[in-house]
Amino acid sequence: MPFNVAVVGVTGAVGQEFLSILEQRSFPAESYRFLASSRSAGKQMEFAGRQYTIEELTEKSFAGVEVALFSAGGSVSKKFAPLAAQAGCTVVDNSSAFRMDADVPLVIPEINPDDIYRHHGIIANPNCSTIIGIVPVWPLHQANPVRRMVVSTYQAVSGAGWQAMEELKRQVREVLDGNDPDCRVFQHPCAFNVFSHDSKVAPDGYNVEETKMIHETHKIFHNNSIAITCTCIRVPVLRAHSESINLEFTEPMEEERVVDLLLQAPGVRLIDDRDNNYFPMPLDASGQDDILVGRIRQDESLPGKRGINLWVCGDQLRKGAALNAVQIAEYLVK
Amino acid sequence: MPFNVAVVGVTGAVGQEFLSILEQRSFPAESYRFLASSRSAGKQMEFAGRQYTIEELTEKSFAGVEVALFSAGGSVSKKFAPLAAQAGCTVVDNSSAFRMDADVPLVIPEINPDDIYRHHGIIANPNCSTIIGIVPVWPLHQANPVRRMVVSTYQAVSGAGWQAMEELKRQVREVLDGNDPDCRVFQHPCAFNVFSHDSKVAPDGYNVEETKMIHETHKIFHNNSIAITCTCIRVPVLRAHSESINLEFTEPMEEERVVDLLLQAPGVRLIDDRDNNYFPMPLDASGQDDILVGRIRQDESLPGKRGINLWVCGDQLRKGAALNAVQIAEYLVK
Repeated sequence: MPFNVAVVGVTGAVGQEFLSILEQRSFPAESYRFLASSRSAGKQMEFAGRQYTIEELTEKSFAGVEVALFSAGGSVSKKFAPLAAQAGCTVVDNSSAFRMDADVPLVIPEINPDDIYRHHGIIANPNCSTIIGIVPVWPLHQANPVRRMVVSTYQAVSGAGWQAMEELKRQVREVLDGNDPDCRVFQHPCAFNVFSHDSKVAPDGYNVEETKMIHETHKIFHNNSIAITCTCIRVPVLRAHSESINLEFTEPMEEERVVDLLLQAPGVRLIDDRDNNYFPMPLDASGQDDILVGRIRQDESLPGKRGINLWVCGDQLRKGAALNAVQIAEYLVK
Repeated sequence: MPFNVAVVGVTGAVGQEFLSILEQRSFPAESYRFLASSRSAGKQMEFAGRQYTIEELTEKSFAGVEVALFSAGGSVSKKFAPLAAQAGCTVVDNSSAFRMDADVPLVIPEINPDDIYRHHGIIANPNCSTIIGIVPVWPLHQANPVRRMVVSTYQAVSGAGWQAMEELKRQVREVLDGNDPDCRVFQHPCAFNVFSHDSKVAPDGYNVEETKMIHETHKIFHNNSIAITCTCIRVPVLRAHSESINLEFTEPMEEERVVDLLLQAPGVRLIDDRDNNYFPMPLDASGQDDILVGRIRQDESLPGKRGINLWVCGDQLRKGAALNAVQIAEYLVK
């Protein structure tokens, strides 16, 4: 059976990562169609040794396409994903447009792969911080239910696109040259600075990134009772997110058991070398498929050994976005 | 009564900040003696419009000196602070050498100024992350005792001295120029990266920075029952630390009450503009005396409104080190 694949938003940071991952994993597609806005349409590009012309995304783009990977922002997804689904295409959407819709599965293949088959034409890819944080938490939660999570993120600028990555590099030079950093993508300087996440802040003080992490985790885990609080922060890192995660379990949870569970967990790699002070770092996570986990420690601030601290890093553009979507698509074509 | 003041470690990052703060605050000294290692001895320096010669630190440096500000590392403090105290000098020591000694007060003037007068010649200045984190927590704890704190830090490189600040600037250029970052001060690259704090990691997995925050908070608060857990991380920021602080209170604690208490708190400035997504940032905190506090939010993951999230930033070299020590010295000369 032939699978014709469309990539929507191919010129973006996640779109470019789709290409690299589809090629690396030899995704079994019969044909590819690369779609973008009219600005990029007509441009030539190479993929897997072949030349392609970027086509403009239109209502008719999905005729004969079985699987579409979308990463072109929420408004593009809202308009075109339902049209693609109507045309018989299955959409894996990286935007937040449909994530909390009851009839749209929200999937991390290491956690809830069966949800993929409940789709009605659209499957949502979770937020990058959600994916990176909860892939290592899931195997622990299955062994001993997590009661409460306190998460603080250290998020790369890539979540705001390649322009944000260019902004960080440009601003760093501006500051070193003695000039003020020119803020175009972000409201605040990102060079040599840290700031609260650039998503909208609700009246309760939580930004959208934080709210996503809470609600998406509940949906993916099929469990609304886990108490979660988050503080989402941008750091001057290019493309991998880090998270400090404090977990409260229902029953006692020994540090050694956490290590054992994570050594067997899919999509996770332990880096926890106390003697050499070597733990996960975003530079090491960049370009990697696995979520790196370390600094696994008993949290003695909770009684009865029910607390564990973790430190995780994951590539925001890969497992946090493109890789997770391609993994979902691999289930679709299996 | 004349106060003769010695500054030990005057060429270091904190030493230089001592000079700036003593001058800005018109510290009421009769005379100054600026001390450093033999490498720097004999060099000329300017302070408050006068020329001084840096003197070599020796056992005889403290004759006739009433107050000495030490920031030359733990081993220098261990050797020379007791000698200074024997010579009748009162030492305010920025190293960790004496902080946990039972007969050495550990002081943040906004919190436990009375402890200053219990000294026996040496007063310890707390760790920078401890100071920056707990100055805003103290007024809340007085109103409603804190049961548990979960802290994740975003620490500037300045905590490792001015060489570390130079390393960050140099590495950023190296990376932008396409070269590998040359690691001299830190074991891991600091440019465009984040890593677990560079202090020694104990067999329980906690690094010394984390352990300091726990034990020093207990000592300063005169309360060993507050449960504290920390994850200490370095970020590519030059000189101000940030901390994400999750607090569990004994009684319900409304967000509005936290705001009211912090508006009146000494040494604290609120920046909490949700509409404009403007919150504390290390760039804004740099060079400032106050700890900036914002992102004050009810943490609904704890029942009964007993949870609060805070985000704080403070200048690591000023309130995190030199300013706090000079404030202590001001009490001594009052």
